[in-house]
Amino acid sequence: MHCGMNMLGVFCVRACSGLVGFRAATRIQRLHCFSGITAAQIDEEVAKLLALKAQLGDDGKHQFVLKTAKGTRDYNPKQMAIREKVFNTIISCFKRHGAETIDTPVFELKETLTGKYGEDSKLIYDLKDQGGELLSLRYDLTVPFARYLAMNKITNIKRYHIAKVYRRDNPAMTRGRYREFYQCDFDIAGQYDAMIPDAECLKIVYEILSELELGDFRIKVNDRRILDGMFAVCGVPDDKFRTICSTVDKLDKMPWEDVKKEMVNEKGLSEEAADLIGGYVSMQGGMDLAERLLQDQKLSQSKQACAGLSDIKLLFSYLQLFQVTDKVVFDLSLARGLDYYTGIIYEAVLTQAGMAPVTNEAQNGANAEESVSVGSVAGGGRYDGLVGMFDPKGRKVPCVGVSIGIERVFSIMEQKAEALAEKVRTTEVQVMVASAQKNLLEERLRLVSELWNAGIKAEVMYKKNPKLLSQLQHCEESGIPLVAILGEQELKDGVVKLRVVATREEVDISRAELIAEIKKRTSVA
Amino acid sequence: MHCGMNMLGVFCVRACSGLVGFRAATRIQRLHCFSGITAAQIDEEVAKLLALKAQLGDDGKHQFVLKTAKGTRDYNPKQMAIREKVFNTIISCFKRHGAETIDTPVFELKETLTGKYGEDSKLIYDLKDQGGELLSLRYDLTVPFARYLAMNKITNIKRYHIAKVYRRDNPAMTRGRYREFYQCDFDIAGQYDAMIPDAECLKIVYEILSELELGDFRIKVNDRRILDGMFAVCGVPDDKFRTICSTVDKLDKMPWEDVKKEMVNEKGLSEEAADLIGGYVSMQGGMDLAERLLQDQKLSQSKQACAGLSDIKLLFSYLQLFQVTDKVVFDLSLARGLDYYTGIIYEAVLTQAGMAPVTNEAQNGANAEESVSVGSVAGGGRYDGLVGMFDPKGRKVPCVGVSIGIERVFSIMEQKAEALAEKVRTTEVQVMVASAQKNLLEERLRLVSELWNAGIKAEVMYKKNPKLLSQLQHCEESGIPLVAILGEQELKDGVVKLRVVATREEVDISRAELIAEIKKRTSVA
Repeated sequence: MHCGMNMLGVFCVRACSGLVGFRAATRIQRLHCFSGITAAQIDEEVAKLLALKAQLGDDGKHQFVLKTAKGTRDYNPKQMAIREKVFNTIISCFKRHGAETIDTPVFELKETLTGKYGEDSKLIYDLKDQGGELLSLRYDLTVPFARYLAMNKITNIKRYHIAKVYRRDNPAMTRGRYREFYQCDFDIAGQYDAMIPDAECLKIVYEILSELELGDFRIKVNDRRILDGMFAVCGVPDDKFRTICSTVDKLDKMPWEDVKKEMVNEKGLSEEAADLIGGYVSMQGGMDLAERLLQDQKLSQSKQACAGLSDIKLLFSYLQLFQVTDKVVFDLSLARGLDYYTGIIYEAVLTQAGMAPVTNEAQNGANAEESVSVGSVAGGGRYDGLVGMFDPKGRKVPCVGVSIGIERVFSIMEQKAEALAEKVRTTEVQVMVASAQKNLLEERLRLVSELWNAGIKAEVMYKKNPKLLSQLQHCEESGIPLVAILGEQELKDGVVKLRVVATREEVDISRAELIAEIKKRTSVA
Repeated sequence: MHCGMNMLGVFCVRACSGLVGFRAATRIQRLHCFSGITAAQIDEEVAKLLALKAQLGDDGKHQFVLKTAKGTRDYNPKQMAIREKVFNTIISCFKRHGAETIDTPVFELKETLTGKYGEDSKLIYDLKDQGGELLSLRYDLTVPFARYLAMNKITNIKRYHIAKVYRRDNPAMTRGRYREFYQCDFDIAGQYDAMIPDAECLKIVYEILSELELGDFRIKVNDRRILDGMFAVCGVPDDKFRTICSTVDKLDKMPWEDVKKEMVNEKGLSEEAADLIGGYVSMQGGMDLAERLLQDQKLSQSKQACAGLSDIKLLFSYLQLFQVTDKVVFDLSLARGLDYYTGIIYEAVLTQAGMAPVTNEAQNGANAEESVSVGSVAGGGRYDGLVGMFDPKGRKVPCVGVSIGIERVFSIMEQKAEALAEKVRTTEVQVMVASAQKNLLEERLRLVSELWNAGIKAEVMYKKNPKLLSQLQHCEESGIPLVAILGEQELKDGVVKLRVVATREEVDISRAELIAEIKKRTSVA
């Protein structure tokens, strides 16, 4: 045992003397066992012990903390109603494009995720080793998808997958960034002719963002091969491609000057190489820019870059047929963080009132910031090598896909609903079975049961003798359009008084015709 | 450092000498640190190291294991199509009964789950302590629901929640038992008049199981207060109520003789008390049985039992109004494992071809086995104390709910689909845009884009020049009903050849009328 154990010993005695419970004791026991402990680790453990201590009340009794885990949230019924609407829009689009759906477990073998996420691997949630396999929560839906394809030897599929993924990131919940969040992925796997599935992915992003009515947006497009070719002709050493690529990816969060500083000071790139990169990554345009760069003296020396530029040209020709080029911009600063992309990459950003014009190549700093603050709402690209990483014989299945940043969409929709003070209905109840007098519980139950059996969405209050007023109030509050009122007179006459909540109009309907009448009045509307 | 370190030291040298990688080294380092290590722990660690070693190939290279975590599975598109159908049936029912929906995170603070599941707590998945809060995967949806109510001070809600839960149980996947599985919960929280919401829960179980067409079923009903009263009058000591209740719960898995043995030999109950219990737990019936037991000399001495029996009577009267008594049986052997139930409990079992008659009180052993083998497909009950466990002031919110055992339902539906060799469609594509000649990719893309924009579900092959036959074959295989065929003649004439896949009938439709024609031909059908 090395450094620091004396100090820890003292702390242990004080902390253990009656104040702190089992968890603290376990923690300290574990501490004693560290052989290569550092001061930082000790500080961290001390902080945890103090946090435990803070949970103890005055009487030493454990105070229960009533909260969800850090970076996570519950969805209340209103949020769920909005979520359902958003999902329906997205799923309809995926289905319109002929996608099937699959599901995978929330955790994978730890080694399935290993080596797929570069520097972000530290954000993976691991499960405790309770005996058996070492497991981790999925970090995205793409790696499980690739594992699924390799495991089942699938070479062709077009599928969507909507599910939660997990990242131990610093949550920024006001901006819709959580540790548990939904991903909505659409991917096309298979050996096809160039850029056709890629163009469909962009068409899907275009359709979804338009239908969700989130305001104006741009879809930035680039290609990993163009980036790699650019790095090569700018004099970046081969082994620095990925790390310089990560730095370029920060251009949407910080100005070029800081990005350049990171390249030169932290990553050890030459000033000249950085400046050359700076020249390229400021370029934005459309098919014309791709054509111009194919003539660029430097860049055209790279075979890779030329292949990427030709594909960008082809992509834009398909996007013209799909009539979506008004929102798509070829942007050489787009890099995307993930290691596994091999070709086309893209990212959609909301631009609020169209502040970032597509064709303006001399990018204005203020405008760039504007689009950043709203942030990315979709992203994706081509990853032709990922499935091969899982296949025992390394057989490749080319893939291209897109992920909709659904949490940010939820946040925006919620803000919109709040701003408009919209009344969001959280149930679909069509009719409330109510009574005007006492002692009619049995009659109410009999009628509501009849309605349920006829497929009508109906409710009854769980009271023997509820007041008519409180039954009507419940309808007003939850937006139930109709009330079927039973009274002794109605029972005698074999009718039900049907009341329209909005107009307060009331009409007697015979029991035999009630179901048809309710269906008529609630159909579509 | 105590026992066993020498042996471990030797093992460490052998295991570390080039053969085993980083994970093994970490494991051994951790082993060295145990201060109170036992022989069993060492055995376990040795087993893990050997398992790691087994994963190493001949060349010492790590062999990747291509699988999902133990006890979990992927859902392929066919399974998802079945799952979607089942969920739609269930959600429709929940919505028909006026339920809202909520969602909660997949993990909770560990202490939120502590002390809620009795002996089953050992099955909870914990997350690794990576700094910060201690977390566990949710074990059911009921405890998170109670936490949600207390946290948000909600006293009235009727909600459903469909989501995955996690139990480190021994998986029996052929029988539809997994470590990751869906729960479909419907719960009514609020202070209401007795048995009205409880009866609605049973009505919902009845509706769902009927609509899913799983074959005949029975819903067993009992009350925790009747069980407790029965234990009291049979002479079970107060502190043994819960543990004896757990043993009674095993009556659906083992015969009375074995249950009695466990009570007497393991739990230390007197033979006489066990026999008295045996007399009661063999009873089954309806409202009549509840009336008879209210007159039972022994049982009627317990206030609790009488309260339970009166409520069973009231429940049956409501169930008669709901016309569901043909499937409901009052069964004194029903106990349910969970600690938190306080009143009515119920469980639905499939009986295959109606083998277990409801009214037969002298339960036939063979019949009992029959219903067991198919197993429970729904269960629930009243838990009036759970929310109070989370409320800082202990305020109670009475709750009653039901959980549909959806995984077993999936298994049955899958078997059915397989047995009938049903063709399950996994997409909803209405039309395939095809070409009869080469060089028509652009025309196909233009047309499919038009169809998408009109809301039609359409597909196009991602090839420049696909063969007409392979385009038609794809339609046959995936059940696409229509093909819109483009050829040079059709383009000249401004028409599209619309082909009905099933009949091979072909008809020329003008471009202007194509969308309306497709919509007409695919509406409803």
